Amino acid sequence: MNVCVVGASGYAGQQLVALLMNHPQVGKVFLMASSTAGARYSDLNPAFKGRMEELLLPATDLLIPGFVKENDIGAVFLALPHGASMPYAQFLIENEPEVGIIDLGADFRIHDVEVYKKWYGDHTCPQYLDRFVYGLPEVHRDQIMGCRTIGNPGCYPTSILLALIPALKAGVVETDRIVADSKSGMSGAGKTAAISSLFTEVAETVRPYKTGKHRHTAEIAQEMSQAAGEAVGLLFAPSIVPMSRGIQSTVYAAIKPEKLEWAKSSILNYYKEFYKDAPFVRVLDEQPETRNVRGSNYCDVWVTIDEDTSTLVAMGVIDNLVKGASGQAVHNFNLMFGFEETAGINMLPLYP
Amino acid sequence: MNVCVVGASGYAGQQLVALLMNHPQVGKVFLMASSTAGARYSDLNPAFKGRMEELLLPATDLLIPGFVKENDIGAVFLALPHGASMPYAQFLIENEPEVGIIDLGADFRIHDVEVYKKWYGDHTCPQYLDRFVYGLPEVHRDQIMGCRTIGNPGCYPTSILLALIPALKAGVVETDRIVADSKSGMSGAGKTAAISSLFTEVAETVRPYKTGKHRHTAEIAQEMSQAAGEAVGLLFAPSIVPMSRGIQSTVYAAIKPEKLEWAKSSILNYYKEFYKDAPFVRVLDEQPETRNVRGSNYCDVWVTIDEDTSTLVAMGVIDNLVKGASGQAVHNFNLMFGFEETAGINMLPLYP
Amino acid sequence: MNVCVVGASGYAGQQLVALLMNHPQVGKVFLMASSTAGARYSDLNPAFKGRMEELLLPATDLLIPGFVKENDIGAVFLALPHGASMPYAQFLIENEPEVGIIDLGADFRIHDVEVYKKWYGDHTCPQYLDRFVYGLPEVHRDQIMGCRTIGNPGCYPTSILLALIPALKAGVVETDRIVADSKSGMSGAGKTAAISSLFTEVAETVRPYKTGKHRHTAEIAQEMSQAAGEAVGLLFAPSIVPMSRGIQSTVYAAIKPEKLEWAKSSILNYYKEFYKDAPFVRVLDEQPETRNVRGSNYCDVWVTIDEDTSTLVAMGVIDNLVKGASGQAVHNFNLMFGFEETAGINMLPLYP
Amino acid sequence: MNVCVVGASGYAGQQLVALLMNHPQVGKVFLMASSTAGARYSDLNPAFKGRMEELLLPATDLLIPGFVKENDIGAVFLALPHGASMPYAQFLIENEPEVGIIDLGADFRIHDVEVYKKWYGDHTCPQYLDRFVYGLPEVHRDQIMGCRTIGNPGCYPTSILLALIPALKAGVVETDRIVADSKSGMSGAGKTAAISSLFTEVAETVRPYKTGKHRHTAEIAQEMSQAAGEAVGLLFAPSIVPMSRGIQSTVYAAIKPEKLEWAKSSILNYYKEFYKDAPFVRVLDEQPETRNVRGSNYCDVWVTIDEDTSTLVAMGVIDNLVKGASGQAVHNFNLMFGFEETAGINMLPLYP
Repeated sequence: MNVCVVGASGYAGQQLVALLMNHPQVGKVFLMASSTAGARYSDLNPAFKGRMEELLLPATDLLIPGFVKENDIGAVFLALPHGASMPYAQFLIENEPEVGIIDLGADFRIHDVEVYKKWYGDHTCPQYLDRFVYGLPEVHRDQIMGCRTIGNPGCYPTSILLALIPALKAGVVETDRIVADSKSGMSGAGKTAAISSLFTEVAETVRPYKTGKHRHTAEIAQEMSQAAGEAVGLLFAPSIVPMSRGIQSTVYAAIKPEKLEWAKSSILNYYKEFYKDAPFVRVLDEQPETRNVRGSNYCDVWVTIDEDTSTLVAMGVIDNLVKGASGQAVHNFNLMFGFEETAGINMLPLYP
Repeated sequence: MNVCVVGASGYAGQQLVALLMNHPQVGKVFLMASSTAGARYSDLNPAFKGRMEELLLPATDLLIPGFVKENDIGAVFLALPHGASMPYAQFLIENEPEVGIIDLGADFRIHDVEVYKKWYGDHTCPQYLDRFVYGLPEVHRDQIMGCRTIGNPGCYPTSILLALIPALKAGVVETDRIVADSKSGMSGAGKTAAISSLFTEVAETVRPYKTGKHRHTAEIAQEMSQAAGEAVGLLFAPSIVPMSRGIQSTVYAAIKPEKLEWAKSSILNYYKEFYKDAPFVRVLDEQPETRNVRGSNYCDVWVTIDEDTSTLVAMGVIDNLVKGASGQAVHNFNLMFGFEETAGINMLPLYP
Repeated sequence: MNVCVVGASGYAGQQLVALLMNHPQVGKVFLMASSTAGARYSDLNPAFKGRMEELLLPATDLLIPGFVKENDIGAVFLALPHGASMPYAQFLIENEPEVGIIDLGADFRIHDVEVYKKWYGDHTCPQYLDRFVYGLPEVHRDQIMGCRTIGNPGCYPTSILLALIPALKAGVVETDRIVADSKSGMSGAGKTAAISSLFTEVAETVRPYKTGKHRHTAEIAQEMSQAAGEAVGLLFAPSIVPMSRGIQSTVYAAIKPEKLEWAKSSILNYYKEFYKDAPFVRVLDEQPETRNVRGSNYCDVWVTIDEDTSTLVAMGVIDNLVKGASGQAVHNFNLMFGFEETAGINMLPLYP
Repeated sequence: MNVCVVGASGYAGQQLVALLMNHPQVGKVFLMASSTAGARYSDLNPAFKGRMEELLLPATDLLIPGFVKENDIGAVFLALPHGASMPYAQFLIENEPEVGIIDLGADFRIHDVEVYKKWYGDHTCPQYLDRFVYGLPEVHRDQIMGCRTIGNPGCYPTSILLALIPALKAGVVETDRIVADSKSGMSGAGKTAAISSLFTEVAETVRPYKTGKHRHTAEIAQEMSQAAGEAVGLLFAPSIVPMSRGIQSTVYAAIKPEKLEWAKSSILNYYKEFYKDAPFVRVLDEQPETRNVRGSNYCDVWVTIDEDTSTLVAMGVIDNLVKGASGQAVHNFNLMFGFEETAGINMLPLYP
């Protein structure tokens, strides 16, 4: 099957291209971009020298009638800034209904258009929000398997949701005041020139930002609420730390008093059982750190109970460009088309 | 006045030596150490080449009767691993009562010997715990001024306490479940060979550790409880991030419902008023980051109210080796002897 | 074919294990170590959690008569500190002559025992030095293919030799004063506790060391001399820079006056032609940087002529743990046994 | 004396402001800028919060007749991009001849206008090139003391010249092929948004650039030639490494055969003697590294003879923003006005 990556020159895009190039079920990978269209891929990304020498096509080629069919494109990955995926998704839904769409941006993660508007602004095709599945395979696996339209989760949400959802499903925590404190490497800010992203501005600092106001709050709350069966109160507090890849999230939630004893004795084993069939979640006995998942599609998870404060503390660590973006997109692609679940994304972490 | 630094070859010790060398009221700085005794200081620390060429004396010289008096030593700074300060402090209290003692370790920070034992083990001179003041000048300034025995606060506690104590004193937050999530650079681990501290093990990672079990919990809870007027429930969760200097702490606490409106409108101004006479606390309008205090004695503080979850979020950032150790020690030294409060520690941050 | 990695817990060893686990011709990978024998591999290297749960065997098991044959071990990789490979290599040569030996240390890289002694000290089995081929496939490919004993090149030498050997073979440079200035990440220092390797000692510094006295000088000079057909004068000057992986080497050599015109017009194309069949050397049109080869087995090479000083400047960049150690070892393994040359080591670089 | 910093919002500019704020002979520091004019200084640089709350004036204010005199400005520091200093310098020379001008850019470092044009392009006031002294105090101290117009050296040149000039003055090295290999932190690229300067593009890489073509070649060759008494052939090869501050330069030059014996026995002591009265050059017995000068005005120097290749190897390390820019500017300012040589710039390095 041929595939197409729209937005191939960003950090998530190029990681996705690298994964798809090694995917056993993928033939040709069409590369598309906007501002970099026309450039040779390996000139933009010298890491690809000798491996991917194609020119970037203009993203608008995708909208040419017949382009998808003539090129046997079975799936389109949209790795674009928020808001930019809508026209491509709408065109494909309306003209190429057989093609799989996996949107790595936020345009189709939120089911409720009012929530979308509150956090992101207007949506040009809200009528299609409903048909997109939130592509967190460990939670929505069955829906993903029968679907052609996936909203791929954000990086922060992936690390937070995989850490807390087992506890929410078990009903052990209070849901009115969940705190998620996340630390992220800089690649999450993308390959965009900005003074605040300079090496000199990021090295040797911890930079909290958008506390309580980050847009990912919307999708985290949506998925937490669904898992809990009731609306949750969520405070999401992200920080930038001086590294390129990786997110570590710690989630704090009060234990329900009646569940305390059970949680103290059983919560870690419950998590292990919860994820026993998930090939990309490793529930550890020790606190996880990001370097042990770098370059891989793993999310390492840990959970404990702090008895002094009756608090459940759950942690998730991921590589934000892999499990937090491109790797999860390929995982969804695999499930969507019935390929082997780990095809193309079973890399070991790169350490050190 | 001459002073003595015991433990001069560690990271906190050498930063302290650098500060004292430039202190207008300090004459000779005696350098002492255990394993590195006999070495030339500038050989161990080439940064000091041409500036401090003294040999390190054995720490036990301090215990020689008459040593302190004959050398006109007015203050002794103990920058030693936890547990190692006790014999020096005891000797000085019993033999040189006029000498100021500032212990940068944890031996004299805890007032309750049972709490000390729980977290640190046995104490060899518990009878002196009471006479030590917890050297957080912004909170215990008056006591410090009439005192010769100071337990200098830990690095994490400094950043956390300065962030939350105004709120505790105002009685706006619930105290049963306070969460402090801290991110620290590696110099806090000291100049000690360990695989887990290697560059290759720390670069590109976020490493949570000792969640709920870090010893600094004891002193943080002690001081929070005192400020609140009641015992607090504290969960302290530290992480290592890839930088050398700096701690960023975020503290989360539920707002008391009856204080919510006041807090929403007034909490930041209240903080500014609270610290208006504190020369080393800057209450910012924006979220603080560690690089803006590096190399300085500042603690930058910020506070906000998350309305969705009725949570107060307070942040403090410091240079762990300055405000979190040596700079605060000099601050205490200044107050103890009635020197100008900012003498020797009014450096601007080093940026970038 | 089953294989054995002796010294599996170091940085080069674990990268080698990761490569061999994904090698299509490799069955079981036996893991051996000295001080860490008995430990579960994934406990030492949490990155391998769920993927390699074997216990480390004592390295001395390899010396048990019959061990190699009974376990169908076709090749043994020795990833040990300098000097430690000798007894294992000697045992295998004398008892298991069919087994391939690839020594990642320096014990068998030097052909002349007097040179070995000068730089490294005594050798316990100098009679076998001759039968080892210096495993730089781009230079000694034919010899490697008919051989069972390989001295795998050092990391610095790989980056330097691949940069200069084409020029030496073309006879365009003077050979009496070749300068190689290399910058290396810290993983080259190994997973060993040392104060000088701490994050706090390596971040924000450039640290030149052993200028003109580094042991790798021996093998670089040996191979340069062989390529040039005469003894070269070499000054090798390495520095540590704050990163984990990667070596960048710049080599400076005077152009022979009579070759200047040719070199100015043709040297880059000559390099491209020289390496046209080498799957892991990419001759670039621009100056190479280490991040574009990270995690891959590539050596990116560039060459130019500085006209003002009639100097040839050649650069090579590698990932020191892959092309500079484990990846090159697998390359040699592939050639030794006639497997596809790129089998198991054709990874794309991990960027960013 | 009041002073003025034009270009106060860049990295060199803000470091200069920090130094001048603590200078015992400096009164008010006027801050000027172009694009950031009108902004509050501490908003642009939160490190200065509470310490420098002035607004940035438009740089063109300096050109208002009477502005300098009315504000008692005795010296103007121009910390501007190359080419931008000319109009300010010309105006001051022609209208305020008593005012000291210290240009941190390259506009007035080159004495020969043809050389200037070759490397930088047109010069709008070449008639004034001659009156500027190249402000390397260790070499041109006497000229600086009787001067009001200083071209402050570049960062790379400072580290290279201080390393090699003693050898050139001693006439021990051949001058036809001098190689300078420099490694620099990223702050040298300035506070300018560019993809190539992003954290994600700089972390974990060594990036050689402009080999043989960097503009600093002009001033290095000018000063080397003057010291040697003959035109030198220079190859300057810089690289970026992943740190914020610091430059390490290694200079390679062939020893004249007749000087070899003397150099082997005496060169290091000769260097120590050469710099014995220079307060900011420390000649070390060991190879220097950048972290030991960070935040200070020191240049640490080391020299050795490689006997195998009869090569002199000289190293210099500096903090590029201090000794390589602002600190050296203040040093020149001190000499220009007869202040104590170390006034305001005698900081100890910040380590770690």
